[in-house]
Amino acid sequence: MGKIADRYFETDPYSVIERGFKDAHSEESESVFSLGNEYMGLRGYFEEGYGGKSLVGSYMNGIYEKRMSPEGGYKGIARATEYMVNALDYMYVKIKAAGETLDLASCGFSGFVRSLDLRSGLLKREFTWMLRSGGSVKLTFCRMLSMKDVNVAVQKITAVTEGFEGEIRLTVGLDLGKVHRTDGINRWSVLHKGSEKGKLFITGKTESEGFVIKGTASYTAAGFEEDEEGAESEKIVSRVLMGLAKDGKAFEFTRTVNLTSFGRYDEYNLKDDEYPKETKATFDSVYADNKAFWQKAYETSDIVIKGDDKDQQGIRYCIFQMYQTYNGAKTGTNIGAKGLTGESYNGNAFWDTETYCLPFYIFNNPEGARNLLYFRYLTLENAKERARELDCRGAFYPIATISGEECCNLWQHASLQLQASTAVAYGIWLYTKITKDRTFVRDYGLEMLIEISRMLASRGDFNADHTAYGYYCVMGPDEFQMMVNNNAYTNYMGRFTIDYLLEELEKVKEESPKEYENAVKKTGLTNDELKLFKEISKLMYIPRDEKTGIIEQHEGFFKLPHVDVDSIPVSDFPLYSHWSYDHIYRNDMIKQPDVLMLMLLFNGSFTTDEIKANYDYYEPKCIHESSLSPSVHSILASQLGYAKEADEFFSFATRMDLDNYNRNTGEGLHTTSIAAAWMNIVFGFGGFRCDGELPKFAPVVPAKWKGYSFRLSIRGCEVLVETDREKAHISLLKGKSLDALVYGKEVTLTPAGESFPLFEKAEENVI
Amino acid sequence: MGKIADRYFETDPYSVIERGFKDAHSEESESVFSLGNEYMGLRGYFEEGYGGKSLVGSYMNGIYEKRMSPEGGYKGIARATEYMVNALDYMYVKIKAAGETLDLASCGFSGFVRSLDLRSGLLKREFTWMLRSGGSVKLTFCRMLSMKDVNVAVQKITAVTEGFEGEIRLTVGLDLGKVHRTDGINRWSVLHKGSEKGKLFITGKTESEGFVIKGTASYTAAGFEEDEEGAESEKIVSRVLMGLAKDGKAFEFTRTVNLTSFGRYDEYNLKDDEYPKETKATFDSVYADNKAFWQKAYETSDIVIKGDDKDQQGIRYCIFQMYQTYNGAKTGTNIGAKGLTGESYNGNAFWDTETYCLPFYIFNNPEGARNLLYFRYLTLENAKERARELDCRGAFYPIATISGEECCNLWQHASLQLQASTAVAYGIWLYTKITKDRTFVRDYGLEMLIEISRMLASRGDFNADHTAYGYYCVMGPDEFQMMVNNNAYTNYMGRFTIDYLLEELEKVKEESPKEYENAVKKTGLTNDELKLFKEISKLMYIPRDEKTGIIEQHEGFFKLPHVDVDSIPVSDFPLYSHWSYDHIYRNDMIKQPDVLMLMLLFNGSFTTDEIKANYDYYEPKCIHESSLSPSVHSILASQLGYAKEADEFFSFATRMDLDNYNRNTGEGLHTTSIAAAWMNIVFGFGGFRCDGELPKFAPVVPAKWKGYSFRLSIRGCEVLVETDREKAHISLLKGKSLDALVYGKEVTLTPAGESFPLFEKAEENVI
Repeated sequence: MGKIADRYFETDPYSVIERGFKDAHSEESESVFSLGNEYMGLRGYFEEGYGGKSLVGSYMNGIYEKRMSPEGGYKGIARATEYMVNALDYMYVKIKAAGETLDLASCGFSGFVRSLDLRSGLLKREFTWMLRSGGSVKLTFCRMLSMKDVNVAVQKITAVTEGFEGEIRLTVGLDLGKVHRTDGINRWSVLHKGSEKGKLFITGKTESEGFVIKGTASYTAAGFEEDEEGAESEKIVSRVLMGLAKDGKAFEFTRTVNLTSFGRYDEYNLKDDEYPKETKATFDSVYADNKAFWQKAYETSDIVIKGDDKDQQGIRYCIFQMYQTYNGAKTGTNIGAKGLTGESYNGNAFWDTETYCLPFYIFNNPEGARNLLYFRYLTLENAKERARELDCRGAFYPIATISGEECCNLWQHASLQLQASTAVAYGIWLYTKITKDRTFVRDYGLEMLIEISRMLASRGDFNADHTAYGYYCVMGPDEFQMMVNNNAYTNYMGRFTIDYLLEELEKVKEESPKEYENAVKKTGLTNDELKLFKEISKLMYIPRDEKTGIIEQHEGFFKLPHVDVDSIPVSDFPLYSHWSYDHIYRNDMIKQPDVLMLMLLFNGSFTTDEIKANYDYYEPKCIHESSLSPSVHSILASQLGYAKEADEFFSFATRMDLDNYNRNTGEGLHTTSIAAAWMNIVFGFGGFRCDGELPKFAPVVPAKWKGYSFRLSIRGCEVLVETDREKAHISLLKGKSLDALVYGKEVTLTPAGESFPLFEKAEENVI
Repeated sequence: MGKIADRYFETDPYSVIERGFKDAHSEESESVFSLGNEYMGLRGYFEEGYGGKSLVGSYMNGIYEKRMSPEGGYKGIARATEYMVNALDYMYVKIKAAGETLDLASCGFSGFVRSLDLRSGLLKREFTWMLRSGGSVKLTFCRMLSMKDVNVAVQKITAVTEGFEGEIRLTVGLDLGKVHRTDGINRWSVLHKGSEKGKLFITGKTESEGFVIKGTASYTAAGFEEDEEGAESEKIVSRVLMGLAKDGKAFEFTRTVNLTSFGRYDEYNLKDDEYPKETKATFDSVYADNKAFWQKAYETSDIVIKGDDKDQQGIRYCIFQMYQTYNGAKTGTNIGAKGLTGESYNGNAFWDTETYCLPFYIFNNPEGARNLLYFRYLTLENAKERARELDCRGAFYPIATISGEECCNLWQHASLQLQASTAVAYGIWLYTKITKDRTFVRDYGLEMLIEISRMLASRGDFNADHTAYGYYCVMGPDEFQMMVNNNAYTNYMGRFTIDYLLEELEKVKEESPKEYENAVKKTGLTNDELKLFKEISKLMYIPRDEKTGIIEQHEGFFKLPHVDVDSIPVSDFPLYSHWSYDHIYRNDMIKQPDVLMLMLLFNGSFTTDEIKANYDYYEPKCIHESSLSPSVHSILASQLGYAKEADEFFSFATRMDLDNYNRNTGEGLHTTSIAAAWMNIVFGFGGFRCDGELPKFAPVVPAKWKGYSFRLSIRGCEVLVETDREKAHISLLKGKSLDALVYGKEVTLTPAGESFPLFEKAEENVI
């Protein structure tokens, strides 16, 4: 692995603290201090401007632009890439004192502390600015995004001047002129802007997509004598506040921003110079609302780790960022691979959503999970169109998307990876199984499953003598094996999807004949198709060595040339940058779990011996070049009693971004890995499984911890699992009883709970 | 197949005639009437300009520009594409009479005849221009490129005026402003231009590559009274000739162009306003020189077909165009897939050169063949650099190139196709075997073979248990199977190359110890490498069904889903345009011969039964979407006695462009298919084979022909094979005796020759 921590922040169970500031960590800090409320995302950049390394990023979920690929593509190769476009900088401020301009890249300063409070989402920064001309200004910057009213952001800047007399000047504004770094251009035009004392407003439209947003800010400015219109550049509206500094004089600027997107320009029904009604929110009201929000969030989702503050901080930060990225309040959006924290991966959502993130929401925030799945229903037509482009029937879900259209113009990924589609089926299955909600599958899921199964029945083929069915020219989860035939994961997920459809057809028909008829009628499902589905399911080929129980990742994998991954020099990583592109694909090296992923998702369908055989075979071949890979291995290692490996793989999962393990946190947070970190604790050390008839628990406690606890929402019950070094205590915080398997034995969980002694040796554990 | 002729030209054994002109055929005619002398290429466009469909193309072999792919590629993916850039229009003329401008798209005309004389390369066009104002001008346009002095082109325009009095005005010029159609831009800057009475000169430089060319023209203008400087646009130098029309008055304009490229701007040692010495060539001298050139060319290369004028015209046109494209007079150039006749395929050369074109030259023009191979020696350093980019050792020859650099930015072709490299080895082998010249392999070939073998020993891998060696993630000749393992063709050619290297190492060591030492020293060849080469050769895996004798195109091919190619609707072709890109690669359909190609190249290494089994298995799976495919099938069909199929596949080989079978002749001629047409007759009907110890002949005569003859240069002898419906007569035109196999029997060919009766039934024939 060779990945090591680059620790920079202070350890604290409920906050992230940066004491002293280093330019080398500047963009990393911007990412780590990102705020989000699923509607807006704001990197932790210095609002006053910074001459050093900085990615000033302010994003709005679902507001994207398009970038076109050059001509000359073939059919089925996506030409347009949607990307989350850098939007309004509503924290914009320029600060001058005694004629000097504040910029921490060039000014003297002391006592720098920046902290993010995980119980309120308050980002606070304070330091003393030492003026070149003598004297100083003690500054504090606070900001929050409202978790309750997602259009609202607040800012408070206080300044106390010492040791000089002269002008202090704030230019406060709304800036639509920030450049999108990847493209090197700004894609907004300002339709209207204006200001009056205490108010700023701006309306902008994106270039290619025509999305309209309106931002207003109302502000107070204590200590300033004058307030006049500013004259910044064309895409900025600003006002200039002037005050006179004196020893000990305090200034306070607060603003409340209201930022709203109005969809496409031709659809919106306000005039360019009309603005929505002012919000009544204040800095203090947002703080109070946020405190309440986070209290409630931790009530269902907190993980407590005893005896390891770093891990405690790490996992809580993960949970905090998951909620910031997505909490299900708004339908129609998805989770980008970097959340709302940077430009990387274009803000696109991948199959990570259903495979890694959805479980977190299902077990913590079922309503959020439902809305996440509903995104796939809203974009079913896009998936059907995409299937047609790929010469398939039914629905082919995109590998990367914002709006529902395929945005990945690498055909070798977009056209060959079927797991985005089967992940949607998996998501419907898991949601339906874990919650008591059957309305989703009845009203939407059945139709989706029919269309996905149709795709699966047209994208695959029977082999030459019609004795087996499978998928040819695919790329499974392991992206280092391209254009392979009969990838086990793909085939297995294909069969699972079809089987699950057949099962739900029966169930829904019985439960809700009308909805059943609707789905059949709407999709035009025929008996011939059902017959074909059944035949495919029966003949689906899963390559497997009967003697060893090892599933062959794809047909022919066993015969591939062997590469000893430990012999690859560290300087060769990441391989995509250092190896010839085709070189990566020519051996038995794998990038991330493929067969093992299957064994996690359908854990109960494999014996421990099988999992062991496959783990022992595949893990040594894996270079973990996906940030999602170690968690999966950690979970299975834990199950197999490989405590040391479980710990090692876990070590950087929770603190991947806090300790910048991959050295690219500056580009944005690894949001979907954050979800994997949660799974790593719950499924790994907690030994939780949910694929069988009953939920299973089999906690172990890593040697370095004194214990830990986590909470899960299952079928309307709220389960609390608490461990210490001797026992696991499992009780219900909500609900009266829940049948479960604990360490392999059937028990009924109750509010009072029950204690179970831990196994002395990890390898004796039973999941 | 479904390909049908679109006959437009008149049939004549020694010329191509267009009688009457149709705009719909305009660009097709421009291609068919292309002139070339391997240094320059000139499409048959109307020099006076044409408002209808026209691709005014004037090319110089080796003068190219670069087009860059967008950023973001991976290592080993070519970013730059070289393309033969549209160069100087040295035939430029504008014609006015009585104030009207000649343009056949809008003017009245009659008696249009255009003809290309295959015995002189004279392109002549005549018609009478009917003036709107009454009266007419009888015009004749003639042009030639000199085959002797390749920098020289000549033009003659005559005009006879009738029925009007008024001014006749010719603006004659040299035009560097023509646009490159694919890019939509012109890539020349004019460094100098000028004119005086009777002379025009221009110096230009290309934008990205900085190639400098200089064109001069000296002209005579009989019947014109005035000659003054023209004022065309910036990139044209011109003069205006004015004369007074009278009944029956004749005007004659002739020019001799001297066009030379001087390499890169920083390397050339003339001043911009200096020009090379004038050529003494005249229209008449060029005509005489060309007649002599073509007479000599047909003496070694002509194919005579008795009883079928269309096929006769077709094959002679093929031979004519092969010589126009390349005749070996100049080293350092290669053969583009469209020759010098259009922009398609960017003027790039492919592995077609060694596989399809080289045999033509080896058997007709050994010196030309040697120069063609020498191109690969000149570009060996590029191939070594390319190998490094692909993480290989040795030399990896480009799939598509002009200068020697890889120009194909589709990694799935450029990085996966090894056949360009092994084709070079094949070319060295065939050239050395057929000619008596061992100097090439001694001085250059050995070094090339070592470097290619090195690549082959680093690009391939041993399988997991080290019992077999092969190539993983490759694309064989059949471009419809991508990223496959152990493609039989690739593995076979790899083994062939290594074996041939080992053989030549022995031979050269014995014959020329000094040259042997040089090659070993220069390449740093080690004994460990030799050991590895031998092990690889021994373990090279050729997948094959022992029971049926069918070679498996690649590992797993037999199990691929089956597609009945006859069931694919005609409207789906070409599949690249109508099927989703990935869809093409997921079944047992093949685009062009792969295993069968092997069985043609190494025909004697397979029994007739094996060839039959493989032909019967693979041909029905082939959709012949490469224009090279039918000839290969025709040759093998002929060998197997499948006379009907042999005829059918042959039917469009010789007249592919004359009858525009693929409906895209307008983009340029199918130059490499032209070579395949030659092979189709010689190897197909002639039953000629050259891969064994002795040359083999086994002629059959297609039912529709009375007979045919062809000539081959073998080991210094000139063999003439003449057939009629009863017998084949084989004699030597040069040389005293040559051992050969005729119909399976060993004979010694002599100048007097010997007659061999034909077999009555095609299937009884013995090759």
